[in-house]
Amino acid sequence: MTWNVYLSGEIHTDWREQIARGIEEAGLSVTLSAPVTNHEASDDCGVKILGEEDESFWKDHKGAKVNAIRTRKAIQEADVVVVRFGEKYRQWNAAFDAGYAAALGKSIITLHDPSLTHPLKEVDAAAMAVAERPEQIVEILKYVIQHA
Amino acid sequence: MTWNVYLSGEIHTDWREQIARGIEEAGLSVTLSAPVTNHEASDDCGVKILGEEDESFWKDHKGAKVNAIRTRKAIQEADVVVVRFGEKYRQWNAAFDAGYAAALGKSIITLHDPSLTHPLKEVDAAAMAVAERPEQIVEILKYVIQHA
Amino acid sequence: MTWNVYLSGEIHTDWREQIARGIEEAGLSVTLSAPVTNHEASDDCGVKILGEEDESFWKDHKGAKVNAIRTRKAIQEADVVVVRFGEKYRQWNAAFDAGYAAALGKSIITLHDPSLTHPLKEVDAAAMAVAERPEQIVEILKYVIQHA
Amino acid sequence: MTWNVYLSGEIHTDWREQIARGIEEAGLSVTLSAPVTNHEASDDCGVKILGEEDESFWKDHKGAKVNAIRTRKAIQEADVVVVRFGEKYRQWNAAFDAGYAAALGKSIITLHDPSLTHPLKEVDAAAMAVAERPEQIVEILKYVIQHA
Amino acid sequence: MTWNVYLSGEIHTDWREQIARGIEEAGLSVTLSAPVTNHEASDDCGVKILGEEDESFWKDHKGAKVNAIRTRKAIQEADVVVVRFGEKYRQWNAAFDAGYAAALGKSIITLHDPSLTHPLKEVDAAAMAVAERPEQIVEILKYVIQHA
Amino acid sequence: MTWNVYLSGEIHTDWREQIARGIEEAGLSVTLSAPVTNHEASDDCGVKILGEEDESFWKDHKGAKVNAIRTRKAIQEADVVVVRFGEKYRQWNAAFDAGYAAALGKSIITLHDPSLTHPLKEVDAAAMAVAERPEQIVEILKYVIQHA
Amino acid sequence: MTWNVYLSGEIHTDWREQIARGIEEAGLSVTLSAPVTNHEASDDCGVKILGEEDESFWKDHKGAKVNAIRTRKAIQEADVVVVRFGEKYRQWNAAFDAGYAAALGKSIITLHDPSLTHPLKEVDAAAMAVAERPEQIVEILKYVIQHA
Amino acid sequence: MTWNVYLSGEIHTDWREQIARGIEEAGLSVTLSAPVTNHEASDDCGVKILGEEDESFWKDHKGAKVNAIRTRKAIQEADVVVVRFGEKYRQWNAAFDAGYAAALGKSIITLHDPSLTHPLKEVDAAAMAVAERPEQIVEILKYVIQHA
Repeated sequence: MTWNVYLSGEIHTDWREQIARGIEEAGLSVTLSAPVTNHEASDDCGVKILGEEDESFWKDHKGAKVNAIRTRKAIQEADVVVVRFGEKYRQWNAAFDAGYAAALGKSIITLHDPSLTHPLKEVDAAAMAVAERPEQIVEILKYVIQHA
Repeated sequence: MTWNVYLSGEIHTDWREQIARGIEEAGLSVTLSAPVTNHEASDDCGVKILGEEDESFWKDHKGAKVNAIRTRKAIQEADVVVVRFGEKYRQWNAAFDAGYAAALGKSIITLHDPSLTHPLKEVDAAAMAVAERPEQIVEILKYVIQHA
Repeated sequence: MTWNVYLSGEIHTDWREQIARGIEEAGLSVTLSAPVTNHEASDDCGVKILGEEDESFWKDHKGAKVNAIRTRKAIQEADVVVVRFGEKYRQWNAAFDAGYAAALGKSIITLHDPSLTHPLKEVDAAAMAVAERPEQIVEILKYVIQHA
Repeated sequence: MTWNVYLSGEIHTDWREQIARGIEEAGLSVTLSAPVTNHEASDDCGVKILGEEDESFWKDHKGAKVNAIRTRKAIQEADVVVVRFGEKYRQWNAAFDAGYAAALGKSIITLHDPSLTHPLKEVDAAAMAVAERPEQIVEILKYVIQHA
Repeated sequence: MTWNVYLSGEIHTDWREQIARGIEEAGLSVTLSAPVTNHEASDDCGVKILGEEDESFWKDHKGAKVNAIRTRKAIQEADVVVVRFGEKYRQWNAAFDAGYAAALGKSIITLHDPSLTHPLKEVDAAAMAVAERPEQIVEILKYVIQHA
Repeated sequence: MTWNVYLSGEIHTDWREQIARGIEEAGLSVTLSAPVTNHEASDDCGVKILGEEDESFWKDHKGAKVNAIRTRKAIQEADVVVVRFGEKYRQWNAAFDAGYAAALGKSIITLHDPSLTHPLKEVDAAAMAVAERPEQIVEILKYVIQHA
Repeated sequence: MTWNVYLSGEIHTDWREQIARGIEEAGLSVTLSAPVTNHEASDDCGVKILGEEDESFWKDHKGAKVNAIRTRKAIQEADVVVVRFGEKYRQWNAAFDAGYAAALGKSIITLHDPSLTHPLKEVDAAAMAVAERPEQIVEILKYVIQHA
Repeated sequence: MTWNVYLSGEIHTDWREQIARGIEEAGLSVTLSAPVTNHEASDDCGVKILGEEDESFWKDHKGAKVNAIRTRKAIQEADVVVVRFGEKYRQWNAAFDAGYAAALGKSIITLHDPSLTHPLKEVDAAAMAVAERPEQIVEILKYVIQHA
């Protein structure tokens, strides 16, 4: 049984790489997926492929929808959705992904600093686990996948 | 045919009252619902009813889950989910509600200042309409409900 | 038991009125719904409520989404979806509605001239009945609702 | 993760081949599917296999249902449904496929000339991307599948 | 809480009337529904409303689909589906209704003579109760609705 | 908006009456439902209505299925499922109801003494609230229904 | 893309073998499934594995449920459900399977002699194709799977 | 066709090993899954990975949720859910799993001593088979998978 794990949220630190490394070292049967984490490519994909826009609203709109083709599939196929909130930016897309995953009955694990506990309480309330460090994500996956 | 409209998000301005007034004046057959908008009551409901907690994490957790009993029913029964983002606070619960509503196939209308367009692009991309002022919400409801 | 019947498609003849009249005369417990049939209002609703657009693509896009708030609810709540194809225009929205209704398991009745049989074969194949005249729709509803 | 992409609609130009070639050159992990694109075989399959009909309506009916066995499976298993509208014919089956795909929550990409924007606005409104040329479909797939 | 009860199957004895009478005497909050039980009307509805057919296959086909508009709605809205099998005829439509109801998770009650136990074992296996006489159906409804 | 609340579990104390009284005093718009709480009637309903059995297994089987007609409908229509565990008996049906409700996405509230926390941890983990006294159930309902 | 085809119904002729042979000769990527077609094994499986019963009703009941473990999985995973009705026996299980498959949105193909058209009209009305001979099933599968 | 079988419930005897051995000897194409059966590891996983708790309630809560990541996936992917009840402990998690599986339409097989028949009647009523010994589970799997 392979596990599909989607890594949603913050794109400015190497938390995804840490998790990927941990999974590899543990030899877990996990397929990781993620949004496009190249910020510029992600912002520009719509207009670059489908044509320029004068209005920044429509530029954003086109890009967000192209990105959604990828993220919707990834969440729909995921067994576990890890949602990472960092210190910076508003990260509404991460919270949106969490809500989307919750409605589909996916197991959610949030990953954030305790200082964000109060504003994230509704998201944490929908989670199966609330972690602070990437290695805890790896530990959870090891436990639920490998333990006998 | 009655329409159920859930008003999610920001609780520090009177946008819900403006929409309610507009709906009443237009004589629309709409049932409005909303989260508990009394900030203190919302924060304290868990521990007040179910017992105190030493850790603020668990206080938040208990409260968020009690509130979810209300918000999940409201979103599940809604035809339209209006999600309002204001200037202040992180409002991750609003984005979470939007993701939850999107996965259920609800018609979403976002309501926010154009200055928030870029960080809200993923949420707007899932919306049927992006409004800036409460009266636009009323106009949309008038149009989709009353027009012949 | 009330029946919800959505009347999708062509907006340039009075077929909806004919059906409504027949239902009233027969005293059937039917709630009819329809898209906004005022062509101009339907085309302009997006920009009129949510702000002008320079590009006609985005004008159409905004309008189509506002209209979809109405049509999606109507189809989702319908027991029967009547889809009317006339002689003029491409009427892709009618075929789109039929496909949407088919995937939701709704009972579809198509209403069109026999001359359109070949190009409509895929839509007719998903229908419970293929009618040529509005009074046949009324007869079907009388039969399925009133007969003992 | 393999992607299933269903190519619906117009059968008189080589757009499917162009997309297939682009996918192959890019080395994407994509499984393409399509309706039977041999016009005569598609029209005749019902009566040829299941017996002649005197009435052309029933000939069409039988054929459309046999074809539906193929197209329903393809759409249900698709991650992305590309719907192509050409200049000729009424192509109601393409719009029907789009509606069917929309109700199932599939990511839709439309492919058509800008001259068709107005009559296709309801279909485009349900799409994640609106393309004009087959190579844009390939670019989108490259982006959502391969980008890191 | 009102209960919707669909009475499927045999149309040549007065078992539906017996159940209706028992429900009325017991004052149960039950809405009964049934297929059209006039055999001739049921057989002829398709051609009578939608036009004659030379082939009896297509006459039957048209009629069965018009009848399905009624029966599908009735089963979909039912809380309980009672399926009655009599001594005569093949009654495949009754078994079809039972399978349809089973897949939708409806509570099924079968009603038949013990002599039919062996050929009906698959249908009975999907039922919540297997009754022999109409008054047992009334007793079950009394028990599940009225008992405190 | 009316709330449907199903009261599952223990039948030997008056906790249902306490909740009913509190709801009435608070004037809440709540429809309560419950299994048949007359132990003997519940055990005997199957054989009494559908005929005696020699084997106690089949007596239990018949009765449990008749009771399931009632409880499945009640849980499926519930917004909130309260599951009460007492000190005595094994109460596997209560835990079964909780699992059933969880899979349907219902809001669960458990009601039990803290001494049962460890064996009930899996059930509590699926709940939106864990209460110890019936009046807390009433307080939660007051909060989620009436608060502004 | 592999196709799963479930062969339901009559067990006294070699129609399944004919279809299997045709599929093999055509080199189609099809996985066939079927109920247990050994009549005696099918009737006895319940009591043989789980213990004898005095009452034939319960013997049948136990067996039908064990068999349902197999048939439910097969139908749920099927793309196409072929339902064969022969001249003998009541074959209510075949009609039940058809109803079950219809509610799940599976493509149904019926296989029967034209003499059964009238009593099978409700089942045929839910089918994508009505065949008379096993080789027609093979032709349909060839067409929908292999044709370009 | 591979079968996924989830073995829920009692963890103090070797019934899972017996079933695994029987499946291996029979050469069945079955993938077995199970909860973590190391009692201590299961109880401690939450606090060990995610941080200590002062309150035993929250220790249990954290652990139960981490375990649920594993069990929910296993049940959702299962074709058959075997639920074992032993003589000791309250085993509410086993009954909860059964209810969860029932609502998802999984085939349930219970495994328990006849002395538990009465308290387990609601769970048994939702099962396709009620077994007393592990070898009966193997026999059922052999029958439904291998028999022709």
